[in-house]
Amino acid sequence: MVQALIFDVFGTCVDWRSSVARDVAQQFPGVHALAFADAWRAEYDPAMARIRDGARGYIALDVLHRENLDRVSARFGVTAPDPEGLNRAWERLDPWPDVVPGLRAMKEKAIIAPCSNGSIALMTRLARYGGLPWDCILGAEIAQDYKPSHAVYHASCAALQLPPDQVMMVAAHNSDLVAARAAGLKTGFVPRPTEHGPGQTIDLEPAEAWDLIAPDFPSLAEQLT
Amino acid sequence: MVQALIFDVFGTCVDWRSSVARDVAQQFPGVHALAFADAWRAEYDPAMARIRDGARGYIALDVLHRENLDRVSARFGVTAPDPEGLNRAWERLDPWPDVVPGLRAMKEKAIIAPCSNGSIALMTRLARYGGLPWDCILGAEIAQDYKPSHAVYHASCAALQLPPDQVMMVAAHNSDLVAARAAGLKTGFVPRPTEHGPGQTIDLEPAEAWDLIAPDFPSLAEQLT
Repeated sequence: MVQALIFDVFGTCVDWRSSVARDVAQQFPGVHALAFADAWRAEYDPAMARIRDGARGYIALDVLHRENLDRVSARFGVTAPDPEGLNRAWERLDPWPDVVPGLRAMKEKAIIAPCSNGSIALMTRLARYGGLPWDCILGAEIAQDYKPSHAVYHASCAALQLPPDQVMMVAAHNSDLVAARAAGLKTGFVPRPTEHGPGQTIDLEPAEAWDLIAPDFPSLAEQLT
Repeated sequence: MVQALIFDVFGTCVDWRSSVARDVAQQFPGVHALAFADAWRAEYDPAMARIRDGARGYIALDVLHRENLDRVSARFGVTAPDPEGLNRAWERLDPWPDVVPGLRAMKEKAIIAPCSNGSIALMTRLARYGGLPWDCILGAEIAQDYKPSHAVYHASCAALQLPPDQVMMVAAHNSDLVAARAAGLKTGFVPRPTEHGPGQTIDLEPAEAWDLIAPDFPSLAEQLT
């Protein structure tokens, strides 16, 4: 039935928060590294929103991250000794421990690809860093738009020459799945209850009856028929 | 120095001729399968030329293959019982025996990706069939143009956020490398002296002093510093 599984990456596949904080701590001794990582990430959606709304043409997420780094650095009153190097922290995000074995199992049953807002370059380097065994890289760049715009889900299905109902979007974020379902895709939910740290209050549970719900990637792989 | 290696696929990585002939023989008993495969392949460049020249908008190679199948079938006086299935022969092309071990060795040293005229869907399924361990899929579809247009090489480098002189195009076809070099890329030549069968007369030798020349993919991997 489902010929391809496409994945949210930041949060769903990789632990961006502690990974980015690790690099922040190296460049900014004395700064609260997790707070800096949270603040950097908080700039993510507003930056993409301007592109989704048409106020700005498509620009790769790497450039938005770099702009946001300057903004957050100023707010924290610090200057990175190597801002380009720090920006590449987003290429060195650790996968959650279940992700690589789970993706390997899913790859036996279907095409697997990221459908992330990260660029092709970023997703490629992240896959090499973490050993993510993608079949190809889909997502924002081939659509020249950002999730949750339906164009991103549709462009990813079109690149595989598959109708949306033969493609499942897998995410730890209910909002991503709301958009994917509205775009006609199947949906799979895997919670990541510590993505935002120990006090996380959102996305702890599925908000709708998603097509598949699993506690981790290997369990999701087992549910695939 | 070279951060990424991008590859021609049909002929360079996979033996399209005998693989396509194998499927042709199943659907057309009594037809000279290798002659049919050659005739089908011969329609490839003229079909792309119309798109390169702007006479037709970008259309995925899968569609061009399907149109060309009808044309060649008519010329041979046959009708495929399952033309869609036969068209998918291009997703089941055997890699040359040195390719998978060679790509694995190269992947340890640099990003590896196809820069083919095949679509993302075609390259993805071909990689799954043959176990080609690509990091991502580049080439014609992300450029919306066909090689040897420089746009295809440049779009592939841009997707990796690398300058052309940090990317090496690897091909068994001198014409591909002429274009890649003119577009500013490094070049690597690996001959495939039986791509067109035992009587092959072209591309038996490097036509220029390419940056790297190797008898097979593992040898090319060893030459990478």
